[in-house]
Amino acid sequence: MSQPVKYLLDESRMPKYWYNLVADLPKPPPPVLHPGTQKPIGPDDLAPLFPMALIQQEVSTEREIEIPEPVREIYRQWRPSPLYRARRLEQALGTPARIYYKNESISPAGSHKPNTAVAQAFYNKEAGVKRLTTETGAGQWGSSLAFAGVLFGLDVQVFMVRVSYHQKPYRRALMESWGARCVASPSEETASGRAILAQRPDHPGSLGIAISEAVEVAAQRDDTKYSLGSVLSHVLLHQTVVGQEAMLQLEMADDYPDVVVGCTGGGSNFAGIAFPFLGAQLRGGRSVRIVAVEPAACPTLTRGPYAYDFGDTAHLTPLVKMYTLGSTFTPPGFHAGGLRYHGMAPLVSHVKELGLIEARAYHQTACFDAGVLFARTEGILPAPEANHAIKGAIDEALRCKEEGVSQAILFNMCGHGHFDMPAYIDYFAGKLTDQEYDQAELAMALSGLPSVTEV
Amino acid sequence: MSQPVKYLLDESRMPKYWYNLVADLPKPPPPVLHPGTQKPIGPDDLAPLFPMALIQQEVSTEREIEIPEPVREIYRQWRPSPLYRARRLEQALGTPARIYYKNESISPAGSHKPNTAVAQAFYNKEAGVKRLTTETGAGQWGSSLAFAGVLFGLDVQVFMVRVSYHQKPYRRALMESWGARCVASPSEETASGRAILAQRPDHPGSLGIAISEAVEVAAQRDDTKYSLGSVLSHVLLHQTVVGQEAMLQLEMADDYPDVVVGCTGGGSNFAGIAFPFLGAQLRGGRSVRIVAVEPAACPTLTRGPYAYDFGDTAHLTPLVKMYTLGSTFTPPGFHAGGLRYHGMAPLVSHVKELGLIEARAYHQTACFDAGVLFARTEGILPAPEANHAIKGAIDEALRCKEEGVSQAILFNMCGHGHFDMPAYIDYFAGKLTDQEYDQAELAMALSGLPSVTEV
Repeated sequence: MSQPVKYLLDESRMPKYWYNLVADLPKPPPPVLHPGTQKPIGPDDLAPLFPMALIQQEVSTEREIEIPEPVREIYRQWRPSPLYRARRLEQALGTPARIYYKNESISPAGSHKPNTAVAQAFYNKEAGVKRLTTETGAGQWGSSLAFAGVLFGLDVQVFMVRVSYHQKPYRRALMESWGARCVASPSEETASGRAILAQRPDHPGSLGIAISEAVEVAAQRDDTKYSLGSVLSHVLLHQTVVGQEAMLQLEMADDYPDVVVGCTGGGSNFAGIAFPFLGAQLRGGRSVRIVAVEPAACPTLTRGPYAYDFGDTAHLTPLVKMYTLGSTFTPPGFHAGGLRYHGMAPLVSHVKELGLIEARAYHQTACFDAGVLFARTEGILPAPEANHAIKGAIDEALRCKEEGVSQAILFNMCGHGHFDMPAYIDYFAGKLTDQEYDQAELAMALSGLPSVTEV
Repeated sequence: MSQPVKYLLDESRMPKYWYNLVADLPKPPPPVLHPGTQKPIGPDDLAPLFPMALIQQEVSTEREIEIPEPVREIYRQWRPSPLYRARRLEQALGTPARIYYKNESISPAGSHKPNTAVAQAFYNKEAGVKRLTTETGAGQWGSSLAFAGVLFGLDVQVFMVRVSYHQKPYRRALMESWGARCVASPSEETASGRAILAQRPDHPGSLGIAISEAVEVAAQRDDTKYSLGSVLSHVLLHQTVVGQEAMLQLEMADDYPDVVVGCTGGGSNFAGIAFPFLGAQLRGGRSVRIVAVEPAACPTLTRGPYAYDFGDTAHLTPLVKMYTLGSTFTPPGFHAGGLRYHGMAPLVSHVKELGLIEARAYHQTACFDAGVLFARTEGILPAPEANHAIKGAIDEALRCKEEGVSQAILFNMCGHGHFDMPAYIDYFAGKLTDQEYDQAELAMALSGLPSVTEV
């Protein structure tokens, strides 16, 4: 039997710059609008929430943004992450495809999220900030910010989507191990949380609501800023170390992907693995099919309209143009909590609208089938979010088998499933169901989209 | 602030041989005895339980035993594991000591255990075995054998100590993800399990009982062998890749340990990190203090006599000379389940008796204090077992501070704590107690030691 092949990059070749896709786009993304004036917002509008260095990255059109040395020093604790050729999975599928995956699960927090958490903590510390607030779904983001916060001596408060807070008490304990304070959202600690609980005391929460709470707390205090784990362009930017490393590692393998697959919640994992390849293509390099995989129970890219919408439920954020299911949409409580966001990163939405990427949606049991096959062949138990990418990669590999073509498929194994064992227990017990979103709720959420007159 | 320094070994320098300490000992270890005849046993006596290749390793006096290429191919999935200098921990302690740790938590099973699990699965597969039985305490060993078994197409049945089975349902689900069958021990599936349940239906189990059950099942079936996660010399042998790599990595750091610290349950983790350094010393190299750390609630090395005893509770194993608390001793249900063994590896016991190593015992809350400090400085959440080694290393570093000397301290971070979050939840809630063993039970267990007339 063939074993996995590991491609390790020398530390000296770890990226020195984050890659900014905006520099290579044929058309700039639509502006972010102020919800009151509907005029494009400027850096100052974002200053209550973010340090200026991150705001500048958010609006930058430079292709390369230097990674500060203190951030690279911390990255080196686990980066460059290994790239593997999944030969045991290939053999189990009987496919002529060459399947490669980047393993981001080896970070201390167990996912790709520290790539941006460390960067954000660094810039906030530099700006004199004492405390960060944030939201988290499955807890991967919250624990990553807790990890980064403790390294820089920042207090971290995490609003965790209530359904995940109860499904994943161990992820919460992990955050506490790193000294963060974790609160179930909606909570009594904010006006937006209290308003929602007044209407529905058993509300399961959503990323949109948790964002509202975290933003509200940050906006009220000078020493406190807000930190977002996905969606925003600077977050996507920080994740591009993943795709850049993968490109160098595939060079070592003398290969190049025909297809890049990423799972998409807010979009940062997807952008991290895909944007460097998309950028190379836009600069005249080899053409690559790029496939975004999302949960069928929260099908933002495949069912939502491309429209201006709020990033949060209480409408405290600016308006961004994105694929959205409506900011009040609450997806059912499926297990890939990190993919339960009503919207999609504006930059990912923009390239979808430009026809540069594909999107597809899968139900969760099929994704767990794929994840367990991956565990039993490649030996690593994936997070439910990562199972979506694995399912996408497997389907591409089976297509190659049908067509009798040997293509190279790349995906990001973005996190391990050690904190998601209740989901696997349900899966093995046959209790995992393919939850559907509520059609009436979606219709109502979409009818509430803000009306924006575009210039 | 200084960041951790990572020392990565090139794959080409991954050990090609396991190191066998027996070759360098001033005096051979006492023989293993047949419980009936009290005569030294031969390889054939062990043949019902183990494939001949492993039995030969068990009794080998060769210094180097070649690692088969298929085993090295699988090792390469995560080996060589990184060595870190724990600079953030050093700064937090204000110590002049240089603290290094090997990170074995990055293996797919999250601990050092796959180093031997893969080797054992390989030799069993080669010998035509279809099924492996084993015991597990915390579940690190059981999940590692499940991982190795699925890679070689072997069925794996794990008898898991009942108290851990209930404390750690997620570890059990991990084993099931890799296709293993996990049973709470004592169980109704074996005569030895039924005998214990008849006396005490709520028996919390022990490693000794779980070993009895696994051995019983293996002995009854031709296609089934038994696999042990620690204690035996061939298991210790397989773990020496850890210490050998650490030695090469410390060369890269231009350093050499003054003190090597390892936590000890059955002894294989301790032997893996320490024996290569002990062997170098015995061959005339630099002298190193070697410190074994064990739980105060199961103080085999620090309180047990050095005597012939059974490896299991039902007395199905041969007699081995070791530090032991008596084969019927059941330690309290503290959280480092991997350290709850009544005995100690004969080879570790032998070097302790020869005065070549030190031993000390700690209570669990002090170990969790150390583990949380490690998590908040080095960023990695350790398993409760590993917390014992961290506590030992911290105490050595504080001694260096007191004495004003800069020594190099090496330990093995042998596993992550992702499946031990209930213990951390109890710790943060102030519910973790320093459990004491039952003195009367210890006395009774010791009074039951077999009487052996040594020649």
